[in-house]
Amino acid sequence: MANAIPVSPLALPLPELPKLAGVRLATGEAGIRYKGRTDVLLAEFAEGTTVAGVFTKNLCPGAPVTHCREILKGGLARGLVVNAGNANVFNGAAGLRAVEATASAAAQTLGTTPEQIFLASTGVIGEPLPAHKITAVLDQLKADLAEDRFADAARAIMTTDTFPKAATRSARLGGVEVRITGIAKGSGMIAPDMATMLSFIFTDAAIPAPALQAMLSKCVDHSFNCITIDSDTSTSDTVLLFATGQAHNKPSEDPAALADFRRALGEVLHDLALMVVRDGEGAQKLVQITVEGAVSNASARRIGLAIANSPLVKTAIAGEDANWGRIVMAVGKAGEPADRDKLAIAVGGTWMAQAGGVAPGYNEAPVVAHMKGREIDIAVDIGLGAGRATVWTCDLTHGYIDINGSYRS
Amino acid sequence: MANAIPVSPLALPLPELPKLAGVRLATGEAGIRYKGRTDVLLAEFAEGTTVAGVFTKNLCPGAPVTHCREILKGGLARGLVVNAGNANVFNGAAGLRAVEATASAAAQTLGTTPEQIFLASTGVIGEPLPAHKITAVLDQLKADLAEDRFADAARAIMTTDTFPKAATRSARLGGVEVRITGIAKGSGMIAPDMATMLSFIFTDAAIPAPALQAMLSKCVDHSFNCITIDSDTSTSDTVLLFATGQAHNKPSEDPAALADFRRALGEVLHDLALMVVRDGEGAQKLVQITVEGAVSNASARRIGLAIANSPLVKTAIAGEDANWGRIVMAVGKAGEPADRDKLAIAVGGTWMAQAGGVAPGYNEAPVVAHMKGREIDIAVDIGLGAGRATVWTCDLTHGYIDINGSYRS
Repeated sequence: MANAIPVSPLALPLPELPKLAGVRLATGEAGIRYKGRTDVLLAEFAEGTTVAGVFTKNLCPGAPVTHCREILKGGLARGLVVNAGNANVFNGAAGLRAVEATASAAAQTLGTTPEQIFLASTGVIGEPLPAHKITAVLDQLKADLAEDRFADAARAIMTTDTFPKAATRSARLGGVEVRITGIAKGSGMIAPDMATMLSFIFTDAAIPAPALQAMLSKCVDHSFNCITIDSDTSTSDTVLLFATGQAHNKPSEDPAALADFRRALGEVLHDLALMVVRDGEGAQKLVQITVEGAVSNASARRIGLAIANSPLVKTAIAGEDANWGRIVMAVGKAGEPADRDKLAIAVGGTWMAQAGGVAPGYNEAPVVAHMKGREIDIAVDIGLGAGRATVWTCDLTHGYIDINGSYRS
Repeated sequence: MANAIPVSPLALPLPELPKLAGVRLATGEAGIRYKGRTDVLLAEFAEGTTVAGVFTKNLCPGAPVTHCREILKGGLARGLVVNAGNANVFNGAAGLRAVEATASAAAQTLGTTPEQIFLASTGVIGEPLPAHKITAVLDQLKADLAEDRFADAARAIMTTDTFPKAATRSARLGGVEVRITGIAKGSGMIAPDMATMLSFIFTDAAIPAPALQAMLSKCVDHSFNCITIDSDTSTSDTVLLFATGQAHNKPSEDPAALADFRRALGEVLHDLALMVVRDGEGAQKLVQITVEGAVSNASARRIGLAIANSPLVKTAIAGEDANWGRIVMAVGKAGEPADRDKLAIAVGGTWMAQAGGVAPGYNEAPVVAHMKGREIDIAVDIGLGAGRATVWTCDLTHGYIDINGSYRS
């Protein structure tokens, strides 16, 4: 079925993905749900690799999320196992047993303990995960481990994504150049339930786990936490950042020393987050919404997400209609301080609405032209304060209904 | 364009709508936006008519909402003017001038003051309301006033609704039988922006304004505030309740004396609210979601609305897929206390998920049959407390995209 959906018109090509010291990868065909494609990823990390993680806020998380949250306290990672096709969510005790079986087998394969094996699963909810299909291929995966497999890794974790997603940057840290490479999968669903957002970031930098966690949390807040496809929150969302230390930089927790690394990490996460939006179900347009003049940055983000999650705004964009009345509505429903008589709205840089009415001398022509493009830019000025935020979403199209309204196969 | 959308398969016929002492109605063609159909309603109330109102929580409300909120403090009403085709929202000072012009002219026509003329407008946002088109027909409307025009009134306030909506009940109050009749319009959009929910309720009972307001607020909370089409909140939502006193019951504020009236009012509002859902944009199925076992009734309602507003749940229902994994997701994202291992989910009375996994011996056949029907019943037991709530929504279909994703004409 995966081939029935055409590649997103917003797709980007994979960048060059250089090797990264301390990370070896292998992918294989466990046959969990898909046939004739890779569906499992094994990553091996150098001894002493530190780790940070951010997980779904959904209160019904999958068993792998529970496992990762627990072992993250140790701050160290030797391995990562990811499978596509089954999310291992809402499987009760059987879900936890599948996690234990996979972590134990991978620990034995890599010569470590289950407390250093991170796991992520993505796919159908509520079907038992056949862990034996994963453990059966671990020896072969170990034999295949190699440093130059990031593109393969990005492909193996896809469920119904229409293109693989990866980004890479270099940064100066502690006197040396370090590299950060990330892969992600998003929510391009065909078989329903398969909408987990997973992302794995790897770096050869040496960074203590607490500093790594602080940077990851902050950067996720400005990237993956600023995107929305349809307001629904997966039970499996996972972002993990592994730092192998093989670049042999001087480890530091000093914010100034880490500034360039933080910049590069932010860019990698930003790129990956926007790729997830570009592969949103049925997406035909990438929408950037910038909110200024709110009473705080948090308020600006909530207003931005209210606009981004509004089905009426999203369908208007799908129809190439710069319908600012619906943006007014979405601002007003956000529950944040707003004054309709101070509100201003621009699309593609043209101010359409100002001071509680249509902007004086408003000319629709440049807006109509902008709405026909692939990348839509909406700016909202609340007119009350200095709070600002940018969020991203996609339009809501017939493709979304096609993908999500079909029977499970 | 309005004729392009077929009548909702969930439509209900208009009931018999008896006369109601103290209410006279007339409808006319002001030609504000539509041609060849009525688009304006004038209601005249007997002297001493008390009034209660509930309005949108949207912070960018229309000028008529601002007007009604202000004059509601007086507690008395002699007239109501409603127009369809233009919402008079986000028109700045011009919007307020249109309100003043309409209220003044209607007050003169009915021999009262603008402070007793209630107004509601529904239609396009951000286009100046041509109030002169309304005031031009007021004399003719006055000449046409009659008691038996509820069906005409229900039709005149429609924008892109596919069927007129009305409900009526009788109740015992203060030794006499009184009647409550309500009309409503919902959100069946063709031209974008036209999604206002308006409802006007009339009774011949004599009830002081404070008691009327208390009952209306409570009943709206359990009816119109428990429905959602797409999570978007109109800038014009208005519910007004007029009590003419012409049944000559003994006025009372005693809750026991008002119990039967409150029951009947609740039923009228419940019927109207469900009609709005039945005419939701693109609706093919009416969905009732009952949440039990939450930590409070308010928590249960928030969980219910999280399920009802989930695009993934709604598209699954459109696809006749009893996808309980998505319901688990929606419960978990609601932000309310929940424990995946205590959660249970039933569709059409069949428990599918229990205790964190698939229900033992779960048989899909009755659920598959239920999902093919027009009315879908979802029950969720959170397993934590005694809080319960019921909310209603419709499915999310291609029709919604067709209706809301087309260019403005």
